[in-house]
Amino acid sequence: MPVNLQPPGKGDLLPICGVLLGTAEAFIKKPDRKDLLLIQLASQAAVAGVFTQNRFCAAPVIVAREHLASGKGIRALVVNTGNANAGTGEPGLAAARATCAEIANLLDCDADQILPFSTGVIMEPLPLARIIAGLPHCIAGLREDNWLDAAHAIMTTDIVAKGVSRQITLAGKTVTITGIAKGSGMIHPNMATMLGYIATDAAVAQPVLQQMVRHAGDASFNCITVDGDTSTNDALMLIATGASDAPAINEADGEACAKLQAAVTEVAILLAQAIVRDGEGATKFITVRVEGGSNVAECKQIAYAVARSPLVKTAFFASDPNLGRILAAIGYAGVQDLDVQRLKLYLDDVLVAEHGGRAASYREEAGQRVMEQSDITVRVALDRGAAAATVWTCDFSYDYVKINASYRS
Amino acid sequence: MPVNLQPPGKGDLLPICGVLLGTAEAFIKKPDRKDLLLIQLASQAAVAGVFTQNRFCAAPVIVAREHLASGKGIRALVVNTGNANAGTGEPGLAAARATCAEIANLLDCDADQILPFSTGVIMEPLPLARIIAGLPHCIAGLREDNWLDAAHAIMTTDIVAKGVSRQITLAGKTVTITGIAKGSGMIHPNMATMLGYIATDAAVAQPVLQQMVRHAGDASFNCITVDGDTSTNDALMLIATGASDAPAINEADGEACAKLQAAVTEVAILLAQAIVRDGEGATKFITVRVEGGSNVAECKQIAYAVARSPLVKTAFFASDPNLGRILAAIGYAGVQDLDVQRLKLYLDDVLVAEHGGRAASYREEAGQRVMEQSDITVRVALDRGAAAATVWTCDFSYDYVKINASYRS
Repeated sequence: MPVNLQPPGKGDLLPICGVLLGTAEAFIKKPDRKDLLLIQLASQAAVAGVFTQNRFCAAPVIVAREHLASGKGIRALVVNTGNANAGTGEPGLAAARATCAEIANLLDCDADQILPFSTGVIMEPLPLARIIAGLPHCIAGLREDNWLDAAHAIMTTDIVAKGVSRQITLAGKTVTITGIAKGSGMIHPNMATMLGYIATDAAVAQPVLQQMVRHAGDASFNCITVDGDTSTNDALMLIATGASDAPAINEADGEACAKLQAAVTEVAILLAQAIVRDGEGATKFITVRVEGGSNVAECKQIAYAVARSPLVKTAFFASDPNLGRILAAIGYAGVQDLDVQRLKLYLDDVLVAEHGGRAASYREEAGQRVMEQSDITVRVALDRGAAAATVWTCDFSYDYVKINASYRS
Repeated sequence: MPVNLQPPGKGDLLPICGVLLGTAEAFIKKPDRKDLLLIQLASQAAVAGVFTQNRFCAAPVIVAREHLASGKGIRALVVNTGNANAGTGEPGLAAARATCAEIANLLDCDADQILPFSTGVIMEPLPLARIIAGLPHCIAGLREDNWLDAAHAIMTTDIVAKGVSRQITLAGKTVTITGIAKGSGMIHPNMATMLGYIATDAAVAQPVLQQMVRHAGDASFNCITVDGDTSTNDALMLIATGASDAPAINEADGEACAKLQAAVTEVAILLAQAIVRDGEGATKFITVRVEGGSNVAECKQIAYAVARSPLVKTAFFASDPNLGRILAAIGYAGVQDLDVQRLKLYLDDVLVAEHGGRAASYREEAGQRVMEQSDITVRVALDRGAAAATVWTCDFSYDYVKINASYRS
C-alpha cells in the first residue's frame, strides 16, 4: 500500500475554469476500467511542457513536441493508458497523428492543436480503432468538475490516484492550481515524469509558462526515483487558462510570477512525492538530502547513488540499519575528490558515521528506531561547500519484483 | 541455485609451485565455517593487483596498495570473510596493519611484505583478536594443493566456490594458471571485483604483471554487474611465482606474453562469469553485447544500462518477452546522438526490433522461446561504427530481495 499517502477524495480536486475533462472505457488493455482521457482547453489557454530525454522516446512525445512548437493554441490533450506507443516506429507515429486528427475533427480545430500522451506497455501497436471509438464517450462526458475521474483514467500500476489542488491570491484575486499525475514504476525522470498535468486559471504568457514548468519539474519530478529506469513517455504539462480575474503574468520576474511559481512547484512536488509513496512495492518513503557540497550536481549525484542502490533499498525494506551500504553508495557515486574523512551521515537526527567510519556515539538501537519508521530522511553532510540537493525514493521489496515479473499478464 | 555453473571439484584446481594456502575457522561472524585464508608466496614471486575505485574503499585496500607500492617482495596475502573492515576509519586501518604485523612476525618478514583483504559486512569493527588467534591454524595447514579449500574460505553469500585452472605451453615448458574468486552481491566492479586471486608459475616481471592484471580485469571483472553496487573492497590480484622452467617474461610484447595474457584473461573471465552465474538470487545468465558503436565507451554505457535495469532484469526473471523495456534502457543510457531508427535488437538469433520499433518478422513465440532459456544473449547492433563491448549480468528475483533484506541476520 502507498506510504503515508492520502489519495484525493471527492471534492478535493478543484475545477479550473477553462479546463473540461472527459473519460471513457476504451478497452485498450483491460476491460471495465477507464483508460482514455480527453482534456479540452478554452481557446485562450497557454500550454507548456517538459518531456523525457530518453532517446527511445514514445511516438506521442514526438508528436506533442511538434504540435507545441507549431505555436498554435492547444485545444485538447488526449491520454491513454494500457499502451505506451513507444518503440513502435513509423506505425506508432502514424497512430498518434491519427488520434490527433480524429479529435481535431470532433472538436473542429487543427490536428496540431492536439497533444497526445500514452502510458503502458512498450513496443506493442497502439489499438487505434479502440481509441477512436472511445473519443465520443470522452467528449460526451466533458465536465469541469472531473479531475478525480481523470486521475483514475491515467493510472497503470498505480494503486491510488494522485492529485492535489492549491489556491493562492494574486493582486487580490483567487487563483486555483490543480494537478494530477500517474506513475509507480519505470520512475527515474530525466526532465519530467510520466505523466503530470497541472492547470491553473491564472493568465500566463507561454514563454513564462515554459520557464515555470521547467523550474517546477526540476524541483519535483526530476528529484525522484523508484527503480532508476527512465520512462520513454515522461511528460509534465502546465496549462494556464487565464480564466481568473488576476492580471496576466507576462514576465518571468515580479511578485505574482514568483508566487504562482511557488504554488505550481508545491503542487508538482506533492505529485512527484505521491508517485514515490505509491512506488511499485513501496513500504517506506525515503528522503535523501545531500548538503555541504561544492555544487548542486555533485550533491544530486551522491543522492541518486544512494537512492538507486538496490542494497540500500532492500536494507530499508528489511528495517535493517545495515548503514555501511549507504557509505558504499556515497563512495561509488563518482565524485572523484570526495574526502570521506570529512563527511557525516545522519539517519533522521541520528549521527551514524563520521571520520570515515561509524560515529563513536552511534548505537544500533538508535538506527533501528529510525529504520522502523515509514518516512525516513538520510542526510549526508559533505563539508566542502554550500550546495545541497534532495532526492525522494522508496524501498525495494518482494512486491516490486512481483509486480514487474507479471506486469504484462 | 547458480545458473549453469559447475563448481570446481577435488583435483580441478591445479597447484602452483611457489604458492601455499592455509585456512582456519576464526569465528569472525559465524561458527563452524572456514573464514580466514593465508596465501604464502615463494620469495621470488611477483604480485600485481587492481583495486576498487570506491571512495569509501576499505582499510585493507588502502594498506594493500601501500604495501604493493613499497616495492619489497610480497610474501603473503591474508583474506578474511565475515567483515569488510570498510567504513571503519582509523581503527580499521590500525586493525589491518596489526594483522600484517602479526603475520610478518610469524613468517619472519616485514609487515609491508603482507597484503590484507577483507569481505563481509561494512562499518563494523574488525574482530582483530579472532583473526590473530586463527593465523597459527592457517600457517599449520599451509599446502600447495589447497586451492579448493581456499575458494571456500573466502565466500560470503556465494552459494558455490569459484575456481578454475588452465595450462599452456611457453617455449616448450608447461605453465599453470589457477584462480579463485568470490562475490555474489554488491557486484558492479570498477577496476576489479571483490575478490579474485590468480596465480601462475610463469616468471613475469612486476611491471608486465601489473599491465597483465589490468588487461585481464578490464576484460572480465570490469564487464559484470549483479546489482549495480560497486563494492568497497574489490581487488583482483595476479601472482607469478616464476617456479616453472619457462623463460622469464620481462617485456609486455612478444608471443609468450600474449599467450600468458590470453590464458590469464580467460581464467579471469570464467571467474567473473561464475560470480554472475552465482549472483544473488540469479536464475538466468545474460550476456549483453553491444556492437557497431562509434567507440567502446558508448557500447559499454548502453550494455550497462540494459544490464542494470531492474525492469529488464525482472522481465528476464519472469521469462516475459517484455522487450520494450530493453529499448527504454538503450534510450536512457545517455548516448545523446543515438539514432534509434538505425539500431537493431536481437534476443539470441531472433531479430526483435528495427526502424525504431518491433521488427515486422518478430513473433512473440520466438521471443518467448529464448526467454525461457537459462543462458540468453541480448545483442544490440548500433550501425554507427566498429566498436563493441560485452557485459554479463543475471536476472532480478524475489531471492535477491530476500538475501539482501536478511544479510546481517
